Amino acid sequence: MSRIFNFSAGPAMLPLEVLEEVQRELLDCQKSGMSILEMSHRAPVYDKVNAEAEADIKELLGLNEDWCVLFLGGGASLQFSMVPMNFLTEGKIGAYVDTSSFSAKAVKEAEKVGAAVTLFSSKEQKYNRVPRLDEIKLPANAAYLHITGNNTIEGTEYHNYPDTGKIPLIADLSSDILSKPIPTEKFSFIYAGAQKNIGPGGVVVVIARKDFVKGRNKNLPTMLNYEVHMDNKSLYNTPPVFGVYIVGLVAKWLKKQGGLAVMQERNISKAKLIYDVIDKHLDFYRGFAEKDSRSYMNITFGLPSEELEAKFVLEATAGGLDGLKGHRSVGGLRASVYNAMPRAGCEKLAEFMENFYLANR
Amino acid sequence: MSRIFNFSAGPAMLPLEVLEEVQRELLDCQKSGMSILEMSHRAPVYDKVNAEAEADIKELLGLNEDWCVLFLGGGASLQFSMVPMNFLTEGKIGAYVDTSSFSAKAVKEAEKVGAAVTLFSSKEQKYNRVPRLDEIKLPANAAYLHITGNNTIEGTEYHNYPDTGKIPLIADLSSDILSKPIPTEKFSFIYAGAQKNIGPGGVVVVIARKDFVKGRNKNLPTMLNYEVHMDNKSLYNTPPVFGVYIVGLVAKWLKKQGGLAVMQERNISKAKLIYDVIDKHLDFYRGFAEKDSRSYMNITFGLPSEELEAKFVLEATAGGLDGLKGHRSVGGLRASVYNAMPRAGCEKLAEFMENFYLANR
Repeated sequence: MSRIFNFSAGPAMLPLEVLEEVQRELLDCQKSGMSILEMSHRAPVYDKVNAEAEADIKELLGLNEDWCVLFLGGGASLQFSMVPMNFLTEGKIGAYVDTSSFSAKAVKEAEKVGAAVTLFSSKEQKYNRVPRLDEIKLPANAAYLHITGNNTIEGTEYHNYPDTGKIPLIADLSSDILSKPIPTEKFSFIYAGAQKNIGPGGVVVVIARKDFVKGRNKNLPTMLNYEVHMDNKSLYNTPPVFGVYIVGLVAKWLKKQGGLAVMQERNISKAKLIYDVIDKHLDFYRGFAEKDSRSYMNITFGLPSEELEAKFVLEATAGGLDGLKGHRSVGGLRASVYNAMPRAGCEKLAEFMENFYLANR
Repeated sequence: MSRIFNFSAGPAMLPLEVLEEVQRELLDCQKSGMSILEMSHRAPVYDKVNAEAEADIKELLGLNEDWCVLFLGGGASLQFSMVPMNFLTEGKIGAYVDTSSFSAKAVKEAEKVGAAVTLFSSKEQKYNRVPRLDEIKLPANAAYLHITGNNTIEGTEYHNYPDTGKIPLIADLSSDILSKPIPTEKFSFIYAGAQKNIGPGGVVVVIARKDFVKGRNKNLPTMLNYEVHMDNKSLYNTPPVFGVYIVGLVAKWLKKQGGLAVMQERNISKAKLIYDVIDKHLDFYRGFAEKDSRSYMNITFGLPSEELEAKFVLEATAGGLDGLKGHRSVGGLRASVYNAMPRAGCEKLAEFMENFYLANR
């Protein structure tokens, strides 16, 4: 089979040019005589890979020396625990916005560590929106505010971020990281599983203000202490070498595309192709997210019946459009159109949706 | 440059056949139309990869349905904390054998969780040996005994394992996992970073008795609870997909070689080529480990001066023998000769050592 359009929510498509480069040098990385898969994390070639990946991500986001970029294992789910372990100080409260089942998991893990409060939840509306900024009322004793920037399962996304003043803003940007420029001046700490926009499964990117990470709980398990990873430039122990290498190649690819403003424009225009079909046939395609909260990464919708949804998935897959089934917890359909999804994939899906509507309305 | 012999301690060489297969299907894995790097961990192709990797490792070790095999992120260093968090029960004590700087790290992490005791330490002899079995006196209130099966930095290895009776035996086998048959009936729990004998960095293999893992501390952070990973067959969250895929290919390669008894014979004979040169020129090559404790995976030795050691590394590297510098914490020289190091690599190193001796004695 030739390569297909993969609308999976993650792990997800990677740029073909990146995959081709990985393939080309898989037996001999940068003339080292060995595969990147075999390379010591203390080797000069890997040192360069690690340093360039950090530098390129900082360049893409316009970050200065006050920031560090870390590459960790364990997945974003481990961050749900590491964030309160590191930042939920005695006498303070972790403040959360609950916009998805992943946000709810983050709250649950924080409650195991200390005091946590949910300031806003769209759970009763099945998480069909993120809050308006005026709906978030921060308590004065908040250790931080934690938000989920893009909600993969539900297909919602923040298009503006709250001003939290002196209270640090922490965000899980797993599913929209590097898909658009971010007003980083509002944030203290960002984390993201790489497997949607910037790499394979098994590596988490942390983007943090150094002074926010510094001098925290010294008695934490070493591997759960961000400061250890910061002080060791992600090389305290063997990192997910291959994952970091791919993230680095994707960062270079993003720079070559013109950076995050270009990606944002491209991503909005790709998503619009699909949202336009949904909006044209409102009686048939039922967009899940409220319009103001729509994600440009994950487009969620339903059809009039589960039978039609099954038929949709079957016929789309046969046509080379894969991964369109919604998350098992919510059902329906979902098209994930991250950075690496070519515009041609979205065009093909939009065309398929139009034809499917005509044949099944 | 063509491929070299890489004696790095890890990440380390992988079988060339495995790398060639990875390269071949890097753009289109098992006719799925996508790279394994892009594949959802919920996709049927990956389900099969995950299940076969587990089944093949169990087959290699001769394990029945009482055992599970898990694939986790975070590195073996995270296991140093997860082991006591899961198994160091109230009123009991974690018993440790200290045979390396990694063993010492395991003790340090246990002490953050509860009570830990070091039953034996070879630290004063710079960790040049593992204990004789009669040197380990287990306290009756031990929650478990933790050993480090092979000590990568120091080049020592257990060739027999203690009988701990009713007290569970836990082992970090990061650097000799699947290099030889293991009397698994003695063990309750084994963990290993994959990046030496069985895969790339970023994936940890856990091999555990199901009844040992079951029903432990329910209030642990979810991602640090082994039972969660067991109940979800390593798919609670996005696993290090690509790493597991490689581990699976290596397991199949090991089966094709004839299994662990064949690998053991081959590994002993490979290591002997190098130890023989050391023993022949005792005045020049100074083997670090006591003979009974010598590792078949990591061969550590020194030369009469640091200048000679630097010259050795320089000339070896120029001759296509890479990664021979000892760990930065101990200096000297180290040849790591894991499963995937071809016999030809050891022959070439032995020949180089003989010539280097003649030229520099």
